[in-house]
Amino acid sequence: MLNGEKQIARPLRWAMVGGGRLSQVGYKHRTGALRDNTAFQLVAGAFDIDAGRGRDFGINLGVAAERCYTDYRELFEREAQREEGIEVVTIATPNGTHYEISKAALEAGLHVICEKPLFFTSQQAREIKALAESKGRIIGVTYGYSGHQMLLQMRQMIARGDIGEVRMVEMQYTHGFSASDSADKFEAQKWRVDPAIAGPSFVLGDLSTHTYYISQLVLPDLKLKSLLCDRQSFIASRAPLEDNAMVMMRYHGGAVGRLWTSSVNAGCMDAQQIRVIGSKASLQWCDTQPNELRYEVQNQPNQLLHHGMPYLDNAALADDRLGALHTEGLTDAWSNIYLKFALAMDAKNRGDEAALAAMIYPGIDAGLEGVRWVENCVRSADSGAVWVNYE
Amino acid sequence: MLNGEKQIARPLRWAMVGGGRLSQVGYKHRTGALRDNTAFQLVAGAFDIDAGRGRDFGINLGVAAERCYTDYRELFEREAQREEGIEVVTIATPNGTHYEISKAALEAGLHVICEKPLFFTSQQAREIKALAESKGRIIGVTYGYSGHQMLLQMRQMIARGDIGEVRMVEMQYTHGFSASDSADKFEAQKWRVDPAIAGPSFVLGDLSTHTYYISQLVLPDLKLKSLLCDRQSFIASRAPLEDNAMVMMRYHGGAVGRLWTSSVNAGCMDAQQIRVIGSKASLQWCDTQPNELRYEVQNQPNQLLHHGMPYLDNAALADDRLGALHTEGLTDAWSNIYLKFALAMDAKNRGDEAALAAMIYPGIDAGLEGVRWVENCVRSADSGAVWVNYE
Amino acid sequence: MLNGEKQIARPLRWAMVGGGRLSQVGYKHRTGALRDNTAFQLVAGAFDIDAGRGRDFGINLGVAAERCYTDYRELFEREAQREEGIEVVTIATPNGTHYEISKAALEAGLHVICEKPLFFTSQQAREIKALAESKGRIIGVTYGYSGHQMLLQMRQMIARGDIGEVRMVEMQYTHGFSASDSADKFEAQKWRVDPAIAGPSFVLGDLSTHTYYISQLVLPDLKLKSLLCDRQSFIASRAPLEDNAMVMMRYHGGAVGRLWTSSVNAGCMDAQQIRVIGSKASLQWCDTQPNELRYEVQNQPNQLLHHGMPYLDNAALADDRLGALHTEGLTDAWSNIYLKFALAMDAKNRGDEAALAAMIYPGIDAGLEGVRWVENCVRSADSGAVWVNYE
Amino acid sequence: MLNGEKQIARPLRWAMVGGGRLSQVGYKHRTGALRDNTAFQLVAGAFDIDAGRGRDFGINLGVAAERCYTDYRELFEREAQREEGIEVVTIATPNGTHYEISKAALEAGLHVICEKPLFFTSQQAREIKALAESKGRIIGVTYGYSGHQMLLQMRQMIARGDIGEVRMVEMQYTHGFSASDSADKFEAQKWRVDPAIAGPSFVLGDLSTHTYYISQLVLPDLKLKSLLCDRQSFIASRAPLEDNAMVMMRYHGGAVGRLWTSSVNAGCMDAQQIRVIGSKASLQWCDTQPNELRYEVQNQPNQLLHHGMPYLDNAALADDRLGALHTEGLTDAWSNIYLKFALAMDAKNRGDEAALAAMIYPGIDAGLEGVRWVENCVRSADSGAVWVNYE
Repeated sequence: MLNGEKQIARPLRWAMVGGGRLSQVGYKHRTGALRDNTAFQLVAGAFDIDAGRGRDFGINLGVAAERCYTDYRELFEREAQREEGIEVVTIATPNGTHYEISKAALEAGLHVICEKPLFFTSQQAREIKALAESKGRIIGVTYGYSGHQMLLQMRQMIARGDIGEVRMVEMQYTHGFSASDSADKFEAQKWRVDPAIAGPSFVLGDLSTHTYYISQLVLPDLKLKSLLCDRQSFIASRAPLEDNAMVMMRYHGGAVGRLWTSSVNAGCMDAQQIRVIGSKASLQWCDTQPNELRYEVQNQPNQLLHHGMPYLDNAALADDRLGALHTEGLTDAWSNIYLKFALAMDAKNRGDEAALAAMIYPGIDAGLEGVRWVENCVRSADSGAVWVNYE
Repeated sequence: MLNGEKQIARPLRWAMVGGGRLSQVGYKHRTGALRDNTAFQLVAGAFDIDAGRGRDFGINLGVAAERCYTDYRELFEREAQREEGIEVVTIATPNGTHYEISKAALEAGLHVICEKPLFFTSQQAREIKALAESKGRIIGVTYGYSGHQMLLQMRQMIARGDIGEVRMVEMQYTHGFSASDSADKFEAQKWRVDPAIAGPSFVLGDLSTHTYYISQLVLPDLKLKSLLCDRQSFIASRAPLEDNAMVMMRYHGGAVGRLWTSSVNAGCMDAQQIRVIGSKASLQWCDTQPNELRYEVQNQPNQLLHHGMPYLDNAALADDRLGALHTEGLTDAWSNIYLKFALAMDAKNRGDEAALAAMIYPGIDAGLEGVRWVENCVRSADSGAVWVNYE
Repeated sequence: MLNGEKQIARPLRWAMVGGGRLSQVGYKHRTGALRDNTAFQLVAGAFDIDAGRGRDFGINLGVAAERCYTDYRELFEREAQREEGIEVVTIATPNGTHYEISKAALEAGLHVICEKPLFFTSQQAREIKALAESKGRIIGVTYGYSGHQMLLQMRQMIARGDIGEVRMVEMQYTHGFSASDSADKFEAQKWRVDPAIAGPSFVLGDLSTHTYYISQLVLPDLKLKSLLCDRQSFIASRAPLEDNAMVMMRYHGGAVGRLWTSSVNAGCMDAQQIRVIGSKASLQWCDTQPNELRYEVQNQPNQLLHHGMPYLDNAALADDRLGALHTEGLTDAWSNIYLKFALAMDAKNRGDEAALAAMIYPGIDAGLEGVRWVENCVRSADSGAVWVNYE
Repeated sequence: MLNGEKQIARPLRWAMVGGGRLSQVGYKHRTGALRDNTAFQLVAGAFDIDAGRGRDFGINLGVAAERCYTDYRELFEREAQREEGIEVVTIATPNGTHYEISKAALEAGLHVICEKPLFFTSQQAREIKALAESKGRIIGVTYGYSGHQMLLQMRQMIARGDIGEVRMVEMQYTHGFSASDSADKFEAQKWRVDPAIAGPSFVLGDLSTHTYYISQLVLPDLKLKSLLCDRQSFIASRAPLEDNAMVMMRYHGGAVGRLWTSSVNAGCMDAQQIRVIGSKASLQWCDTQPNELRYEVQNQPNQLLHHGMPYLDNAALADDRLGALHTEGLTDAWSNIYLKFALAMDAKNRGDEAALAAMIYPGIDAGLEGVRWVENCVRSADSGAVWVNYE
């Protein structure tokens, strides 16, 4: 159980690129990073494409005015000149800039935390991975939902055979907030449907990479063999980017999967869920009731596992922050992810590769796999929704 | 609101073929047919493949011993000789016998009520449809769930535009009762995985035809253009019949659909549900909470409509039996379906084609469409899970 | 598991007093009694205070015109003269008439099934009990909800110690259909707020006696020591009858209880529930999800037990009608109760007192206890909501 | 919507008394206070009764070693001597010490944030209130749940008449974590059942004051006239302190209320809920689904209001932190409460009494009312569970 005590010698000096006043996601990053003031310290930033607004914003967050920069280039350059310059940067900008900023950050010797989908192509991801390795830096990818402790419980239970042999993975991440085209007029949404900025997909990258990563987290040994994706642009102006997509999967070993992602599921406030079906039992989790894990053994009463309870595995309990009596939310999940990023960066800094190898967090491989997932889905969809080998 | 008063001049004289002591479904038919004793009267039957057991069973239901017959041939022949012989027969036998018994019944001048999936091929269904028409007889297909009043509410709301333009239909009918192969040893299950008796499919026909019919009921104008089905036999001995299947659909007009059906969804007690997504709102119903209809308008509070309430459409309220304060179940849905069969048969007997045309019940066209649905799914699956035009 | 086969030699000849076309409850009685045509046969009735309407209604139910009588006196007298006259009568009239009709029925040698609350006073109930005993007749009281199988499961689990020592019973039966006074204008509701016809209470008798009986069913050994009731008439014209009441209870042995009953719980469609809390675990059931029983063991995952599953006790499974995959409703519960009435009457007719003693159904003692419960609540409330010994 | 930008000129210098490594609640305070680093800054503390452990802990939180003190006396004295000493202190110690520490803090000129139940007696609360007024200091009471935005929505809707005239308030805060006496052996629980440290009550003060405050928050004009409380010690060693209590209430104006609080509701993970019933509609909220508010208008479909949605009132939306698509939890509620404390303290410091008067947060009056509530409950219970005027 976590209570805010430091787990590394001192907080890492941290900056943000993007995530400013109009950002939908910037506050989640700060919430995660700054939870306990023992993992990260926000000391600099280039928070906004509008430099003045960004500076004003940074000051309002408590950042020194002279460390609120015009853009990421200035940020990296000037911080490199400081005695106690930044050590890690979060990239919370539109997708199309992730690659160049990540590259610049690594070249400046920084650890990187980046929004998903990481890049436009898996080729870019492989290149950045190699660069990070050569520089000895960590890349964290903010699959924020994956910080919910019950997912680690799910991972443990599947690993020890509680559901038998895995047969099917059923995934969904849908909402209805883009049901009409009026949604596209908002600043925070507009770029998401512009291929030049968003990349090859809208909801596949924006939503489903979260759920696909969760499936990797709970099923680390399950590997895709082939998939088929059909995608739609119900608001025509979004084409070629999809606002709805349906995927079928075949895994090595005979298991199958499905995923549905949508931003036009009208009236749906939020429905991200995953169900893993085994030969004996199933496990189901959804992000609107993140403190509950449903364990359904065929021919037994269904069971509801609850966060923070002594019957959970240590892996799950270690991430509990409030205790069983209290309702955790996405804020706690982001805090968990960011803490793990700090621990990984600290281990890397200390050269403790053994510790690093034992850590479970969404790193560059998870980010690369998300890009690859989107690539394969788009390739299938653009070929007429046919089966494609997972490449 | 229904209260048991007669709606036709006298109960129809009714017999069953199958549905005996070991049947899983026979009691549901009797429950539906005999609810009020004003629609049907059980007067004869060939209840069991074991004639002695069937006779004993029939007597226990109150049928005269001399009208408990050895098989359907004897039943039809002998009843035809009685002054007040049967007028309608329910066929609740394994799938492989539906065709020949239906044919014999129609040729004996009987109205027919038959279990789903109706037949093995749509060709058979078309033939029987023609025979029924030439004989002036009605065929009812027992899509029992479709009798829930909230589905009629859903139909009305979609028809009058409450959800806008239909974009997607999401369907599921899964359970876990065949998760292990031990399930196949039970008499009532064994034949379902034998192609000679069950036909070309297991769960596609056994389960998903219910949900597919519900989609037709609530969306009478939506027509399939093409589909793709991937099916699995997780218990290998069931091959070529599937115990799990995933379907993607494309409708004329641009809407898409999905359906998942399974009997190996371990630990799932029952999950039949349908969600229809429109450009403005969605409607969702599931059969474990059949008295509730979820109406989700984007950017408004979600609404829960409740059976028996004055704000519902007359079409729904007309089928209410218990009042809003009381929980209806599948028993009430079957009662509704059977009452509609009686009304249709009575109208047919009276030659009231206008009344017939206005009635909504699962008849031969619904049965044919179910067979066709399975045929197309199997054709796609057996071609490697490719898109096939809906034929 | 029930499938409609006869359990007694022949159906009992049955009549109804009340329960006509405008009745809210009459159809539930017929639904329960006539489910399988093997327990009861509706052969006569005095269905309505408007004799012509009642006759027309009876004929529409299939009753012979000459056996549709003007009132209960004529019914009992004329049926007594028939060779195959009625053997049992259901009384589904307003409360104020239950006593005199029951008395007349018993004196006519009939078994009696009566709506709750049974009578106005426990003195009346004791008198009728003595009369029934002297006549060798059964009285069944239609606590219809108590027919849900999961309540028998609850009884078994408590009896064998699954929850430890009982500490608290938490009960509720509320709805909002009388939130405004306009509800009182409907025929079916008007008499319920008239003390001359309804008796000493409105919701205490009309609603809470159901839930209180359920508590007796699942906790046969728990006896009330004292209680305190505060009742309100939020619609002033209903005074002295209450439309809302809150009760606190103390049981012999140290357990405590609460009950809330209301017809002004605005917007609540239906909320009848009971939670029994023991030293180790709790059990909870509610009538809108009657097929589920929640079993919560402290420090273990909560469990959801589902109707029709092999892990249930035989006592529960014996009453299953549809199988685990299908949703049972109140219709099924009423069928169960009526079948038990028939079995009890048949045992009484055969003089099989041993069988009778083993049967669990809501009989005269349950009816008497319901009246006593209301008496004690009213006595407390009318004394200023003070503790009164349970007398 | 909040995003972490500063709302006061600089963070307040903040210390904690208690809330150390073994505390159940200390981390919630830090989580609330330090959310954005723009409201509070943790600079000192006396974190533990074991001074060494407390110092070690404080250092691990990033507090300077020399500002980790032995006890609150040293903390207040030494910080008063610093140029930039603390301005506000949180008291997260067992109940019995709240009074003396609060008094000392106020006398040291500090703003105070204190755990509930505030003190042992309302007399103490009135005294401290007077002291705070004379010193010009703010007292915040950590009714943490009250920070959930949907409660402000509830308040607005009731205020503008959306439910009509209030008739009943139904409250519950129960769990099962003290179902057995083994719970009392844990350090963090032991003192809660010792009257010398916990005060006159266990669950009434520990749990129900939260829910009672929520009722005040959403119904500011509803005033108690009398109440009746029955309390039990199911684990006998806890007597005279109760582990279960049931309260009935009568409000001025005719409304009534109920509250049940328990720590022996075996198997219940958490059930804090409030339902306010009006003449037209009801509103219901529970803390395990804090992002949803159920609005039930009689004779209309039930509505589910969701956090962060544009249809909510500004009062609610202003406190949103994650957006409608993301699940908020107790962490976010505590952040909201602490931010309001900071705003109130800042306004007080600036002498802006007009701003202060418009703020809604749990201050000394709320704390006093909680103590008074417990006093009245205990007085009733100890008089034999009789009605007492609310004094």
